[in-house]
Amino acid sequence: MRALVLEKKDELNLRDFPAIDREEAVLGPRDVRIKLHTVGICGSDVHYFTHGRIGPFVINEPMILGHEASGTVIEVGSDVTTLKEGDRVCAEPGIPDPNSRATKMGMYNIDPAVRFWATPPVHGVLRPTCVHPEAFTFKLPDNVSFAEAAMVEPLAVGVHAATKARVKPGDNAVVMGAGPIGLVTALSALAAGCARVYVTDLSEAKLEIAAGLSPAITPVDVRSQNITDLVKRDTDGWGVDLVFEATGSPQAAAAVFEPLAPGGCVVMIGGQPDPISYDAGAAMVREARVENIFRYAHVFPRCVGMISSGAIDVKPLITRTFNFEESVRAFEIAASAPPADVKMQIELPQ
Amino acid sequence: MRALVLEKKDELNLRDFPAIDREEAVLGPRDVRIKLHTVGICGSDVHYFTHGRIGPFVINEPMILGHEASGTVIEVGSDVTTLKEGDRVCAEPGIPDPNSRATKMGMYNIDPAVRFWATPPVHGVLRPTCVHPEAFTFKLPDNVSFAEAAMVEPLAVGVHAATKARVKPGDNAVVMGAGPIGLVTALSALAAGCARVYVTDLSEAKLEIAAGLSPAITPVDVRSQNITDLVKRDTDGWGVDLVFEATGSPQAAAAVFEPLAPGGCVVMIGGQPDPISYDAGAAMVREARVENIFRYAHVFPRCVGMISSGAIDVKPLITRTFNFEESVRAFEIAASAPPADVKMQIELPQ
Amino acid sequence: MRALVLEKKDELNLRDFPAIDREEAVLGPRDVRIKLHTVGICGSDVHYFTHGRIGPFVINEPMILGHEASGTVIEVGSDVTTLKEGDRVCAEPGIPDPNSRATKMGMYNIDPAVRFWATPPVHGVLRPTCVHPEAFTFKLPDNVSFAEAAMVEPLAVGVHAATKARVKPGDNAVVMGAGPIGLVTALSALAAGCARVYVTDLSEAKLEIAAGLSPAITPVDVRSQNITDLVKRDTDGWGVDLVFEATGSPQAAAAVFEPLAPGGCVVMIGGQPDPISYDAGAAMVREARVENIFRYAHVFPRCVGMISSGAIDVKPLITRTFNFEESVRAFEIAASAPPADVKMQIELPQ
Amino acid sequence: MRALVLEKKDELNLRDFPAIDREEAVLGPRDVRIKLHTVGICGSDVHYFTHGRIGPFVINEPMILGHEASGTVIEVGSDVTTLKEGDRVCAEPGIPDPNSRATKMGMYNIDPAVRFWATPPVHGVLRPTCVHPEAFTFKLPDNVSFAEAAMVEPLAVGVHAATKARVKPGDNAVVMGAGPIGLVTALSALAAGCARVYVTDLSEAKLEIAAGLSPAITPVDVRSQNITDLVKRDTDGWGVDLVFEATGSPQAAAAVFEPLAPGGCVVMIGGQPDPISYDAGAAMVREARVENIFRYAHVFPRCVGMISSGAIDVKPLITRTFNFEESVRAFEIAASAPPADVKMQIELPQ
Repeated sequence: MRALVLEKKDELNLRDFPAIDREEAVLGPRDVRIKLHTVGICGSDVHYFTHGRIGPFVINEPMILGHEASGTVIEVGSDVTTLKEGDRVCAEPGIPDPNSRATKMGMYNIDPAVRFWATPPVHGVLRPTCVHPEAFTFKLPDNVSFAEAAMVEPLAVGVHAATKARVKPGDNAVVMGAGPIGLVTALSALAAGCARVYVTDLSEAKLEIAAGLSPAITPVDVRSQNITDLVKRDTDGWGVDLVFEATGSPQAAAAVFEPLAPGGCVVMIGGQPDPISYDAGAAMVREARVENIFRYAHVFPRCVGMISSGAIDVKPLITRTFNFEESVRAFEIAASAPPADVKMQIELPQ
Repeated sequence: MRALVLEKKDELNLRDFPAIDREEAVLGPRDVRIKLHTVGICGSDVHYFTHGRIGPFVINEPMILGHEASGTVIEVGSDVTTLKEGDRVCAEPGIPDPNSRATKMGMYNIDPAVRFWATPPVHGVLRPTCVHPEAFTFKLPDNVSFAEAAMVEPLAVGVHAATKARVKPGDNAVVMGAGPIGLVTALSALAAGCARVYVTDLSEAKLEIAAGLSPAITPVDVRSQNITDLVKRDTDGWGVDLVFEATGSPQAAAAVFEPLAPGGCVVMIGGQPDPISYDAGAAMVREARVENIFRYAHVFPRCVGMISSGAIDVKPLITRTFNFEESVRAFEIAASAPPADVKMQIELPQ
Repeated sequence: MRALVLEKKDELNLRDFPAIDREEAVLGPRDVRIKLHTVGICGSDVHYFTHGRIGPFVINEPMILGHEASGTVIEVGSDVTTLKEGDRVCAEPGIPDPNSRATKMGMYNIDPAVRFWATPPVHGVLRPTCVHPEAFTFKLPDNVSFAEAAMVEPLAVGVHAATKARVKPGDNAVVMGAGPIGLVTALSALAAGCARVYVTDLSEAKLEIAAGLSPAITPVDVRSQNITDLVKRDTDGWGVDLVFEATGSPQAAAAVFEPLAPGGCVVMIGGQPDPISYDAGAAMVREARVENIFRYAHVFPRCVGMISSGAIDVKPLITRTFNFEESVRAFEIAASAPPADVKMQIELPQ
Repeated sequence: MRALVLEKKDELNLRDFPAIDREEAVLGPRDVRIKLHTVGICGSDVHYFTHGRIGPFVINEPMILGHEASGTVIEVGSDVTTLKEGDRVCAEPGIPDPNSRATKMGMYNIDPAVRFWATPPVHGVLRPTCVHPEAFTFKLPDNVSFAEAAMVEPLAVGVHAATKARVKPGDNAVVMGAGPIGLVTALSALAAGCARVYVTDLSEAKLEIAAGLSPAITPVDVRSQNITDLVKRDTDGWGVDLVFEATGSPQAAAAVFEPLAPGGCVVMIGGQPDPISYDAGAAMVREARVENIFRYAHVFPRCVGMISSGAIDVKPLITRTFNFEESVRAFEIAASAPPADVKMQIELPQ
């Protein structure tokens, strides 16, 4: 089948990729075959394109990109019970070993054996069809579009972060960073019960998008405003209950405790290739709890439920849509990263 | 000062009540004096009126009613730092012993020594002014009205229940009961992260109000629909993550585990004068957690924050407003309890 | 192979049982074959013998008894990595569906599809060998005997209960019931951090055994002493942090909240065939948390570790040992239940 | 009264100190007067002696040292109800503002207004008597000696750390550091349910003391052994559930995640004057939870209970006892810090 293949750093082709046809010729008894409809472009896809690697994961062989996906079930394995041909679905891109110790404990996302779409050597889904386990494929209600469903994957990061934070109703939060992950985190924090969310960034354009998502979001341009001063002023000096670090910037991460209230919680979301600076004294006098998260677990059906019920609206984050044939150009545009674009998606031919 | 006095069962007078003037002549150093603006009528106020008692609490002496209050600070004690004359506020009606063991542990609501407005022998606040500790008086932002602020007390019950439930984003919930407490619980559960809330009742009128609060609320008339069947159908047989019992009906309370998912949580809110039936077997096969709640703690400022930010809208619950002079009639109407009325409030002269 | 077969109510035979040989002829790739060494007699085994059923589980066909087991690995499947021939092991008797929703969430014990030894129609292990999944078979350190290892199964109930209770160091607890489950719960509560554990019962003999387990255990004969009065006296009226209900008696279960401190937790362990009485008022004024437990999950290796390190000593609970050939007589003695016997075990020929 | 006064850095005198007599002439209604019996020497006392400051806390005026205290009540205020003359007690050295926001939430230890013995400008208790609030004074059972009771304060740090860690029965832990705080943390971790505790240090002498406390403690000399390799070998590569950082060394603190299992928890106890290095990547792939602690709250009566019941034995940590008249010499010895000494105590004349 035809697929968007990253041949190596900087070289993307939309071309036939027979290996994947052979790999997925047979359907396992608890697998389904999905005709893909919409696939979002993630920063990690772009990073593989522009750098050829992310940390220890290196593109040594041609690899199909894409892991934010929705589509339609077109075939089901013999033991599948919860899905049937014609079901509209979204798919969770990481498949763990069901017998591993972490998986057995319910933490399948940190099972070292997990196989994750578009992370070498596992292929992604910018292609017409894929085979996937029933257990990681989730049916969509009629009122959730394919475009929204392809947003479940990035949204899941925010919802997982908010779950780990154990948001209490009426909490105040700071989300550091107004990129796609910062924005889904802000939406998730609000949906999870926050009364007010301060979103910080250096980009005016990104902050405008953040501000437009909800009147309960306060955008903070850290070039001109000190977030700690602002938070302290608004809270009689107490601070916010939660800080979500979603920039991946070492400078931002070094300051997570400053606006935090006594007894508050910091959630580290943004990846950090190198060790960062940790103000243990500031953490201790607040008895801060720090949660470090890795992707997500158990939240896909929750995200679908919240989109369907209106608890979360992801549509404002989808800023451009391309045809499959325009995939290479879409990545080139994404790689030049105009800050006003949050999420670009690619639609597969149906 | 003039006050709404419950002389004894069935006898209410709006009259001068000099005892309260003497009691509150002097302001403590950490107290404030509040000119009351709006006071809601609670089911417990009405119950004292119609029955003369609630469990062990008996009206032996004339007592002023009312405990859902907002107003304006008109005087502050010498050591007050967070409030000043002119501040618009709402007030938490229970005052614990700051030195008790429960209070020290942060559970001041279950301190046996707590003194609670309009619970004999403590007077309520259907009167022009009252004295209250700074620590239990909360400033209102400009965009929160006195009427909304007087809703903070009932709302606090729902928010406390949702906090104890530890709602995770995307949970599904059943709220049993569409009375005032059921409705604030449904709103709180949604604000706390629920994707969908089923609200059950026997009254068509109440269910219509519930349905109007949010598209994420599903009203269920238990005379014609089986909530467990409905929930199981919607969730592929799994059940809901949370059940909030807000009816106080022994029959309803006996069935809390039926619609509950494995690993789910039941929150008991509705008071039960007698022991109820508990299906331990059903609880065990689900490893259900049961939280039993008593009023609220630490949530008043959170409620104010959520009303201010738009996370919760209590205005649809305020269905009638009376002048102070109409207080007796207001209680007579409330005692006849037309089901379409959720919350009646009384405005004091300013 | 020869096995202890419950033919039907009241009829036990030690006889050849060819069906099990056929069933276990082939070893799955992730299974091991265990030569059994010691199998404890559980109250449920005895109950099937004397009543022919437990609730919905009915002995319709001959069934092998026994589910508290230790032994030696004698054969391993092709994909087994953590065990090898000759390893001494204990085995967790319930096998869930690895793909079920509950299992995926880490709650495999409440997966409705779980298959549990000696629960119809699944055979138990009072027989020379059995086949079992690697994932539910745990290697023993040299200093843990087969007899101790066969105690891991009942101990797991207590450790799971103490885990769910979230014991904090220095908590005080009441364990209702000094039967085998009450005793393992008392030991588990102490190991989990309790400073003092009150164990209640009606049997002098059982209470003596309880008292002998630790100086931190206070035996309470509820025929002559009121547990609530005693606890209140010892704690300045505050109560205990934890109550574990391990009698299965409706009368005991109806009184779980009386000795409980504000903010305390009740753990329901003892099975109850019928709904019980629940004092919701008493639960609410304390804001009690109630955990309802079902068997155990994730605790077998923890139990092995605690026995090995000396954190828990189960040896005093093993009061009699029989040869396999004496199995029928052992069950007859167990069925007449002399209260001074806690745990009887059967040793298989090696 | 006569007191051990730190005049300034390096200058200690045992002399009359009339200011404290004046300060404590009058007893408040909820205070008690304590005749001190035993006071332990803490590393912080020694540090004020040798450095004249700890971080922002500077010795500008003469200050009495000592904050680990036990004694006998000799006078009670008019409203005291739980203590009486003659009661043997230990005292919690930090007194918060009962009306502060942190205190109200149950986190009185992180109330910025807390007044803590022997932290400038608050005097300590190396003197014959002191006045203290009833709420922070705890009665001793007969079987707890004054020497043990004066160990409650350092033990409280360990018990608070183990409480925050939420130890589950059967957890394995690493405690980094075999100084006094490392040792009480190891004892607390074991009492809280750990099956095995690895204690690391660079000092052979300290590790020998650690090893002597329990067979469940494994001493690890990090000069010759790699703790991560050891832990991984013992746990089939999984790691430990808990890491307690009790060295205060930036190098140790930088490596807390290495031996940690997926889903594990790190507790930061050792103070760090400067920001430390934090391996966010290692934290994220494990979804580590990090708890940062500051002193303790709510644990004094728990520590007393555990010492009394035998759950924790602090006696092996008390390595030398001095008379009050030898106080200056005791501090000189402590300042030269022979590693084989864990805790030195001073006995006041009775």
